[in-house]
Amino acid sequence: MTQAISAGPGSLSPHRVVILGGGFGGLYAAKELGNRRVQVTLVDKRNFHLFQPLLYQVATGGLSPGEIASPLRTVLKRFENITVLQGEAVDLDVKERKLILADGDVPYDSLIIATGASHHYFGREHWEDVAPGLKTIEDALEMRRRILRAFEAAERETDPARRQTLLTFVIVGAGPTGVELAGALAELAHFSLRHEYRHIDPSQSSIILLEGMERVLPSYAPDLSAEAEAALARLGVVVRTNTMVTDMEEDVLTLRRGDQVEQLAAGTVLWAAGMKASAMGQVLAQRAGAELDKMGRVIVEPDLTVPGHPEILVAGDLANLSGRDGQPLPGVAPVAMQQGLYTARLILRRVQGRSSLPFRYRNRGSLAVIGRHAAVADLGFVRFGGFLAWLAWIFVHIMYLVGFENRILVFSKWAYDYFTHNRGARLITEENWRPQLSRLMQP
Amino acid sequence: MTQAISAGPGSLSPHRVVILGGGFGGLYAAKELGNRRVQVTLVDKRNFHLFQPLLYQVATGGLSPGEIASPLRTVLKRFENITVLQGEAVDLDVKERKLILADGDVPYDSLIIATGASHHYFGREHWEDVAPGLKTIEDALEMRRRILRAFEAAERETDPARRQTLLTFVIVGAGPTGVELAGALAELAHFSLRHEYRHIDPSQSSIILLEGMERVLPSYAPDLSAEAEAALARLGVVVRTNTMVTDMEEDVLTLRRGDQVEQLAAGTVLWAAGMKASAMGQVLAQRAGAELDKMGRVIVEPDLTVPGHPEILVAGDLANLSGRDGQPLPGVAPVAMQQGLYTARLILRRVQGRSSLPFRYRNRGSLAVIGRHAAVADLGFVRFGGFLAWLAWIFVHIMYLVGFENRILVFSKWAYDYFTHNRGARLITEENWRPQLSRLMQP
Repeated sequence: MTQAISAGPGSLSPHRVVILGGGFGGLYAAKELGNRRVQVTLVDKRNFHLFQPLLYQVATGGLSPGEIASPLRTVLKRFENITVLQGEAVDLDVKERKLILADGDVPYDSLIIATGASHHYFGREHWEDVAPGLKTIEDALEMRRRILRAFEAAERETDPARRQTLLTFVIVGAGPTGVELAGALAELAHFSLRHEYRHIDPSQSSIILLEGMERVLPSYAPDLSAEAEAALARLGVVVRTNTMVTDMEEDVLTLRRGDQVEQLAAGTVLWAAGMKASAMGQVLAQRAGAELDKMGRVIVEPDLTVPGHPEILVAGDLANLSGRDGQPLPGVAPVAMQQGLYTARLILRRVQGRSSLPFRYRNRGSLAVIGRHAAVADLGFVRFGGFLAWLAWIFVHIMYLVGFENRILVFSKWAYDYFTHNRGARLITEENWRPQLSRLMQP
Repeated sequence: MTQAISAGPGSLSPHRVVILGGGFGGLYAAKELGNRRVQVTLVDKRNFHLFQPLLYQVATGGLSPGEIASPLRTVLKRFENITVLQGEAVDLDVKERKLILADGDVPYDSLIIATGASHHYFGREHWEDVAPGLKTIEDALEMRRRILRAFEAAERETDPARRQTLLTFVIVGAGPTGVELAGALAELAHFSLRHEYRHIDPSQSSIILLEGMERVLPSYAPDLSAEAEAALARLGVVVRTNTMVTDMEEDVLTLRRGDQVEQLAAGTVLWAAGMKASAMGQVLAQRAGAELDKMGRVIVEPDLTVPGHPEILVAGDLANLSGRDGQPLPGVAPVAMQQGLYTARLILRRVQGRSSLPFRYRNRGSLAVIGRHAAVADLGFVRFGGFLAWLAWIFVHIMYLVGFENRILVFSKWAYDYFTHNRGARLITEENWRPQLSRLMQP
């Protein structure tokens, strides 16, 4: 038997804010509401906040899961007005103002939905088996497993063609995630694994980055794309732009470039191409009449509320709000953080009977890292690449890492790795792993 | 198509040593043979060496898996005569001198088998579902998951009796693993989780340590057992000795103490009681006529060879060799390390045509840790407990942590945790984790 967590209704009890999702949007909203005169419940399926921008480091063996995640309870424990609830939302009752979890209801006066996005295969969901995406810790461990297993299998392989297939890694999509993944994978193969095998030379691996548009990092300025492409080339990544994947089977991709169709043999394919909003968007469409865009994002009012439902706010990747250029704001951490803060402040002002200005995104710049001392940065008033951009990237990511301990750990690890090309977190793990022989031998 | 890894036979080619198992025994044997005039192949099912003595820290959220494990290839890459092979042994051809893997054969001139032990339920293997043991990284993550889920469920529970069941944790077996696990779990519940929940007080959890013998740490001297028991009591662990588990179902244990039978409601049960040698012992019995003891360990000659097969050596937990007191040597890391070294030196002396003295274990002492500044140490000539023993424990464990990076990381993490009672690695993860709602909503 489970309970509704918030206090009962009544005009004298504090305003009840329910936040769904403990990513950047939800967490920054919760912190802003901490120790204020509202009663907050943060609901997340997982018990931790994940620092998604570093997930690719887990996928390539540079960091351990615990180093880029912090328990939500720990991050928020100093705020006595915040209750953290591990639970999964399955529906919404907008009339009774209750969030429906798989195992109980949570009533709200204001609701902030910040459930983010996940990867997407444009209707080819079966591609996921061949080409896993990168959104969760589990996704990252699956990528790490596939990458390391490919090298192990190549070491055992005698057929040269099959061996080269095993040593071919394709990353689909050259947005920031794809570029960072390709750079880290190239470092792993070309530097970290050197001298570790006896029958293969990991530096002979092919790392191929595919992009359907005409340049890498298509959302960045063209000169930064060019700089990123040059840095990738120096790491030995083969970049192929204007190239679409039209079919995918185990070990074989079908590519199209203009009218040309070709097949590419690759043992490992990683997906960094498509994004789609989380399923809560569909719930909002059904229950609150929200309109969704093609990616399933909720088209919100300028103050991030759902049209017709001022008590429901949407922050982060799930929200579609146009920026000054008329384009929807990008699905990046700074947008989610600022929107989380904004929704919290809007609610606080409302409780005080004050009005708010529309949300405005302050773009403090974009950063993407390529390998161990190259990156590109676009701060709006200035754009630069190379080592300086890399330092800026390190600085920003360390600053925003949520747990104090994680910050020190990750920083010391990076300092060490920088000088040694080391990538220590290279375990191939599986749930419920059991040795085969014991299974055979046991009664 | 896969290949046999070693060079072909022939008296002029170097002596081929195959080591099965990359635990303490196998790894120390390999390092000793590194860059010597033998050709070494180390075979392990996993791609990493695991520092098992700290596994309980992963189970209780103090450390991440990557911090107590190092890739075998990395540890051994400086030895050019060593090939690391990830593979699983399924049989042995003693006549042809080939180790049979699931996907290929590895011929040997000398074979060192160091496949260790796993937990054991004395014929009640179905208990494993209720009470997982602690031998692999995956086991530790499963324990962590169950422990953290129990607190989450208790936070949601309104029925007081059921809530107390969820907050009752039983550890079966008070050897070193059970004692360390109970101490770490008590610290987690009574200190680290303080202020993190709103409806439960984790410090009200019951941590119960069961032992069938008359005292905890039965293999230690009685005064150290008494000291350990006092330290456990200070941490709030309830120790129940002379108590056997006779039945186990979900949430209910049946206990027997003398003639008294009782039932104990407990939401989480952790197994630290039984050990049994790995299944390679049975292969050695069938193929090489080896005799096994009750625990499945191979009864070896004084030089760790299998009777009648001087070319096959057994090191570590799989070997049954009696110490000076007539009792089999305990299944602890120092025995495995020394036996690994011994087997390597024996082979090197044989290749040079020299003979060897029998193996002799040099007991440098026993250590068990209970919580954050209590431990017990028995160095043979002196026994002591408390803070000094705890410092000795930290020192020894840091010294033996295999990767240089891991040592620094773990030490800085411990220093931090010591001052803050922090346990940051508290993620609940699962393989192929997917949100429920997305599953419902997707086509």
